[in-house]
Amino acid sequence: MELSVGEIAELVQGDVVGDGGFIIRGVAPFDEAGPNDITFAAAAGYKKRIDETKACAVIVPLDVRQSKKILVRVENPHLALAKVSTLFHATLRPVTGISQQAYVGNNFKCGKEVSIHPGVFIGDDVTLGDRVTLHPGAVVGNGVAMGNDVIIYPNVTIFESCQIGSRVVIHAGSVIGSDGFGFATDGDRYHKIPQIGIVRIDDDVEIGACNTIDRATFGQTWIKRRVKTDNLIHIGHNVVVGEDTVLVAQVGISGSVTIGDHVIFAGRSGTSQNITIGNRVTVGPQSVAFKSIPDGQIVSGIPAIPHRLWLKISNIVPKLPDMKRKLAELERRVKKLEKS
Amino acid sequence: MELSVGEIAELVQGDVVGDGGFIIRGVAPFDEAGPNDITFAAAAGYKKRIDETKACAVIVPLDVRQSKKILVRVENPHLALAKVSTLFHATLRPVTGISQQAYVGNNFKCGKEVSIHPGVFIGDDVTLGDRVTLHPGAVVGNGVAMGNDVIIYPNVTIFESCQIGSRVVIHAGSVIGSDGFGFATDGDRYHKIPQIGIVRIDDDVEIGACNTIDRATFGQTWIKRRVKTDNLIHIGHNVVVGEDTVLVAQVGISGSVTIGDHVIFAGRSGTSQNITIGNRVTVGPQSVAFKSIPDGQIVSGIPAIPHRLWLKISNIVPKLPDMKRKLAELERRVKKLEKS
Amino acid sequence: MELSVGEIAELVQGDVVGDGGFIIRGVAPFDEAGPNDITFAAAAGYKKRIDETKACAVIVPLDVRQSKKILVRVENPHLALAKVSTLFHATLRPVTGISQQAYVGNNFKCGKEVSIHPGVFIGDDVTLGDRVTLHPGAVVGNGVAMGNDVIIYPNVTIFESCQIGSRVVIHAGSVIGSDGFGFATDGDRYHKIPQIGIVRIDDDVEIGACNTIDRATFGQTWIKRRVKTDNLIHIGHNVVVGEDTVLVAQVGISGSVTIGDHVIFAGRSGTSQNITIGNRVTVGPQSVAFKSIPDGQIVSGIPAIPHRLWLKISNIVPKLPDMKRKLAELERRVKKLEKS
Repeated sequence: MELSVGEIAELVQGDVVGDGGFIIRGVAPFDEAGPNDITFAAAAGYKKRIDETKACAVIVPLDVRQSKKILVRVENPHLALAKVSTLFHATLRPVTGISQQAYVGNNFKCGKEVSIHPGVFIGDDVTLGDRVTLHPGAVVGNGVAMGNDVIIYPNVTIFESCQIGSRVVIHAGSVIGSDGFGFATDGDRYHKIPQIGIVRIDDDVEIGACNTIDRATFGQTWIKRRVKTDNLIHIGHNVVVGEDTVLVAQVGISGSVTIGDHVIFAGRSGTSQNITIGNRVTVGPQSVAFKSIPDGQIVSGIPAIPHRLWLKISNIVPKLPDMKRKLAELERRVKKLEKS
Repeated sequence: MELSVGEIAELVQGDVVGDGGFIIRGVAPFDEAGPNDITFAAAAGYKKRIDETKACAVIVPLDVRQSKKILVRVENPHLALAKVSTLFHATLRPVTGISQQAYVGNNFKCGKEVSIHPGVFIGDDVTLGDRVTLHPGAVVGNGVAMGNDVIIYPNVTIFESCQIGSRVVIHAGSVIGSDGFGFATDGDRYHKIPQIGIVRIDDDVEIGACNTIDRATFGQTWIKRRVKTDNLIHIGHNVVVGEDTVLVAQVGISGSVTIGDHVIFAGRSGTSQNITIGNRVTVGPQSVAFKSIPDGQIVSGIPAIPHRLWLKISNIVPKLPDMKRKLAELERRVKKLEKS
Repeated sequence: MELSVGEIAELVQGDVVGDGGFIIRGVAPFDEAGPNDITFAAAAGYKKRIDETKACAVIVPLDVRQSKKILVRVENPHLALAKVSTLFHATLRPVTGISQQAYVGNNFKCGKEVSIHPGVFIGDDVTLGDRVTLHPGAVVGNGVAMGNDVIIYPNVTIFESCQIGSRVVIHAGSVIGSDGFGFATDGDRYHKIPQIGIVRIDDDVEIGACNTIDRATFGQTWIKRRVKTDNLIHIGHNVVVGEDTVLVAQVGISGSVTIGDHVIFAGRSGTSQNITIGNRVTVGPQSVAFKSIPDGQIVSGIPAIPHRLWLKISNIVPKLPDMKRKLAELERRVKKLEKS
């Protein structure tokens, strides 16, 4: 892949300072780039020493104006990096067809240019779109349907009747459509409630490694468009996750929770069950929402409270021993005053 | 499946109000049910609007006495739902025999009507009971024994010599009998202690997806009868989990912990190692028991304290900035009093 | 395996009290040992009743001097146990060669005495050292290289180009080299940043079950020599974990964190991203480091603070209701004083 600096600038809607005709052959991090690479400098530490990279061109924020290097000035260098890097590393997956060492059930329908690797299991009545890739050890249950350009990585299990949109990526070891944790108690023993719903995953969702997304008791557990989940995430039965929402590693969402659009659950945060999280909410790292959260709130703590209050409290907590001592001292002094 | 309302009422030990002879063909949630379905209304919000469901019959608690719908009045509608839904959705798994695309080791013994899917690996000296189902990608180590009616879902690994009872269900991606985390340190490096015990899982246990249950160093890690675990749970070496105990998603139990019967570990709770949790204890969500807990206690927090105290504290914590301000103010006022 | 007590003592650098020529045939825990076994007594409870074990010989700390049993006195009984148990339980894995039911890609190179089980998938350009064992369901991507004596347990996925040293053990269900969680936002949608780095795992590392270790965005995620991880651990992209560091179950390490040597992350602890954890740091159970931690610190809490301060605070927190009450009372008393 070869592109001129000017072509790259056009892609990322940036201004070129320097030779726009220079040819770029790769993208690499600041300290590892070579003379035919483009790199990027967003953090203050890199902006100070732009001339030190061996790259010929550097993607920079708009406040950088001059350098010995060729500059591509953009509003959002991180986003520009994503676009440029995607261009240079477009994964050319060879189409392998359907391996004879895969198992394919009855009434299988699939589009063109699929890659079904050895060791894949496909149940009955499965429908796949065009250019779907199923990696080794993937298990696809009866009646599952997928759109186009889906990638299912190794050892993923997708249970029966789940619906997967187009351009969905599911990383290794994840389980989609396992039974929800639904038991009724008679006060002594637990009786299983059949979990007869499904999981529906919409277009452009990316699911991390070793996630567990439970099927609904009735109806569907629903992961909406462009949701991104990190690794080791649990999503309970009947949960709805809104569009463009991000769940960072080890997050846990309890059953029947509804999450809005553009929400961020930071690392290892979570929720109680049956609550509603509004649009554009942020739940801080390691924090757990015990109650519903309205639109736009930033919350932290266990249970989650407004983030600013939590910050204040986090600063006070280390002073608790001091407060306790002061309180005891004040008590003595007040006693003394009362006596006199 | 067709059943009269009367037959259903008998199953759940309920009273019929209305036409007990009406024929029911399915069970569905309140807002999705059709005219041949039975539904249920337990929460206050549903009880208020029973006449609005399209279902012909409704399972209700005893405090509901009249409706245009046929009613089945029961003490525990949730439990009744479990029973009725199980009846209508009894999974008829076709018996598939032993696939030629499964690998079966030497000295394999198994009961009747087993289903061993393609892509299953069975080591040497394995014994399976009747009607055992091993789904694709399941790996069963040497010397493993299972009872009757066991279901092992895809990509589960069961290591050598583990003992699985009857009617056990293990969901996808779980690992049973991995090495306990046992290392001895010489102050500089860690030396592995061989983990030569097993995992024993008793009858009617259900293990969620992507659990890791470690084998004992010596002896056994023991999951007793009717235990239910949710997803992404870790159980360390030599743990004993008592009968009818429930572990909700992302719980972590450290090594050599003994848990009593009828215990509930809420979502992402856990324990330190080497402690004992009594019978009928509840450990709240996101809470960690650092010390042993006696029978019947409800605890919350990190470290876990009595739940009522934790609730009080949770209400005070957001007032800490206020308390700190008041304390400083009081100090000033006392100082002033002391001067005068 | 038969060894005299004297031979065992030599191995663990201990003193024999009693008949050093006695022949030992096994190692077992205190209450389960038989007359030809050696056992160990380290905890006070066992030291008190050494004569009660049925074992003929007992490994004890130096403060035990006399017993009816043959004693092997050592400085570190736990370490001695690890060594003796390893000796008696040396796993004799039969070499099985390359199963015809495994899939092997092009340009495969491997050393002698490998065991490639049925259901293994090996991509193109893979290199394995001597005596490597790949268990059923293991998936090894294109261009992966492993050293000697590696054990990859069932259903593990290792993605393309990852580098695995010698004597590495990876337990079942783990995922090595999944994509880092790297997305750039345009304020509205998330754009994937290609994850083109690798995971490098050095010699003598042991990775637990169901871990997820992400590949670097650029460069490498690096697990250094002799690191041990427990189960269900997440390690983000570009993390460096120093030598002899231990990560206990359910730990989560965010992206671009650098961890020193000889660090301990206790159960379910973790970090924010982009920070540095010094050498010989201990992060307490369920604690999260939000900021970098210098060498040698012991920290606890969320956010993590010095452990001693955290202990003090943990003792004060349950007294908060009392403090609040006292504060209100003091206020009343001060008011009264001010009036008079």
